[in-house]
Amino acid sequence: MQHFIKQSKQKRKKIGFVPTMGYLHEGHASLLRQCKKENDISVLSIFVNPKQFAVNEDFEKYPRDQKKDELLAKKEKVDIIFHPSVKEIYPDGYLTSVAVERLGNYLCGKSRPGHFKGVATVVAKFLNIVLPDVLYLGQKDAQQALIIQRMIEDLNFPVKVKVLSTVREMDGLAMSSRNNYLTPQERKEAPILFQTLNSAKEKILAGEADIHSIIEMMRSTISKNTTGRIDYIECVNARTLEPINVLGGEVLIAVAVWFGQARLIDNLMVRIY
Amino acid sequence: MQHFIKQSKQKRKKIGFVPTMGYLHEGHASLLRQCKKENDISVLSIFVNPKQFAVNEDFEKYPRDQKKDELLAKKEKVDIIFHPSVKEIYPDGYLTSVAVERLGNYLCGKSRPGHFKGVATVVAKFLNIVLPDVLYLGQKDAQQALIIQRMIEDLNFPVKVKVLSTVREMDGLAMSSRNNYLTPQERKEAPILFQTLNSAKEKILAGEADIHSIIEMMRSTISKNTTGRIDYIECVNARTLEPINVLGGEVLIAVAVWFGQARLIDNLMVRIY
Repeated sequence: MQHFIKQSKQKRKKIGFVPTMGYLHEGHASLLRQCKKENDISVLSIFVNPKQFAVNEDFEKYPRDQKKDELLAKKEKVDIIFHPSVKEIYPDGYLTSVAVERLGNYLCGKSRPGHFKGVATVVAKFLNIVLPDVLYLGQKDAQQALIIQRMIEDLNFPVKVKVLSTVREMDGLAMSSRNNYLTPQERKEAPILFQTLNSAKEKILAGEADIHSIIEMMRSTISKNTTGRIDYIECVNARTLEPINVLGGEVLIAVAVWFGQARLIDNLMVRIY
Repeated sequence: MQHFIKQSKQKRKKIGFVPTMGYLHEGHASLLRQCKKENDISVLSIFVNPKQFAVNEDFEKYPRDQKKDELLAKKEKVDIIFHPSVKEIYPDGYLTSVAVERLGNYLCGKSRPGHFKGVATVVAKFLNIVLPDVLYLGQKDAQQALIIQRMIEDLNFPVKVKVLSTVREMDGLAMSSRNNYLTPQERKEAPILFQTLNSAKEKILAGEADIHSIIEMMRSTISKNTTGRIDYIECVNARTLEPINVLGGEVLIAVAVWFGQARLIDNLMVRIY
């Protein structure tokens, strides 16, 4: 991989990179399409990274389908699929980690300790292997995108980051490989995440200033109408991820809700002037 | 810096890099000479990295002499001196760190908690800024060299590492910017580090198998003959830095001793077959 990239760099090829855990969907496809359009070489990595799963999480059962992924990659004219084994990425004697302080402690970081350290570490590795000019990330994983951008800026990785909009099903459900875990009933309920996010955004833009009443509205809507178990519903500063008390500036409304085996996340950005 | 390096890379120039904290001496000069010989462009960084000093350590008073450094750099035909400010390297909002587990807990890591995290972090940053083909380090800082090599391998930085032999004064004292702190009397005593390391090595090669008696010999020689306050004297596995109980394989004999304000370190490698 590094040899090929080195040769491509010497030919002054511009390299775009889309890191994924596979089980690709239309969200990934939109990243790959943009990547292909803006670069000479588009690289897709498929790696279910054990370091970003806690022991009680779904590393083992995370959905994998190499053939389907290869078909989608072919359709999006991906030039290279980088699909390493866990042993290649974390060989015996592996000892190094990359951590971004604070940003990893909020939102998903609270219920998934160590998760973002695993993410930052594997992305740092992949940036050194793929040496991309541009990295493509999805806004669905807003906290992940923010942490990766912070790491890239802090560690001076010579790469530009583009965060693309969340791609949704017709009914608003954010595309996610974990939607695969949903039963038909849960699948029917899951669009409530996007619906409540939108209601909250509308309320804020209409002048509602009480954050707690907004969050309470979202909480009760989800509790009353679905089987979902709420992990968090928060309004935070979109740059620092710190909880805010007064609405203003760029606010990220973020939710995580368990539907059966599936922990789904979604978010909306609201700019308040 | 990154712009110049990018242009040089496109011209297929080979880049060598010597990271330092300045106050250059003949040890640095030997790295710069090798770097210049083996590369098209030799880059020297001078940066006293606050993150690798604890609050009670000598960050503020660490010796600095930019003019003298520039003269030495010129003599060694350095192509670029990279001399950033602390604010440029750690701007407001900086949050990221790189850590190498375990290796940083032994030897100097015990008396300097957080030190090697600071080292790994700044080196990761500098590798991304300078994008060298070859990185030159000194064997005097054996633990630092090992940790940086581990980080480079673990995070897949596309750079080759060369560790060059410790350069010594005529009387055996390892060159170090901190030798500057020594009073004339301490300066007379300091070569005892290298002398006792050599005695230990001779004893081991002559068949002495009792590690504790070797360390005790070193300890008593230093205590009886100097004003030095011993921080540590250890025989460790040269790859894992773990204390060993039975001599064998590659052994690192490492010492750290305070002479007045100066904490001096030195080491010798012994291969036992």
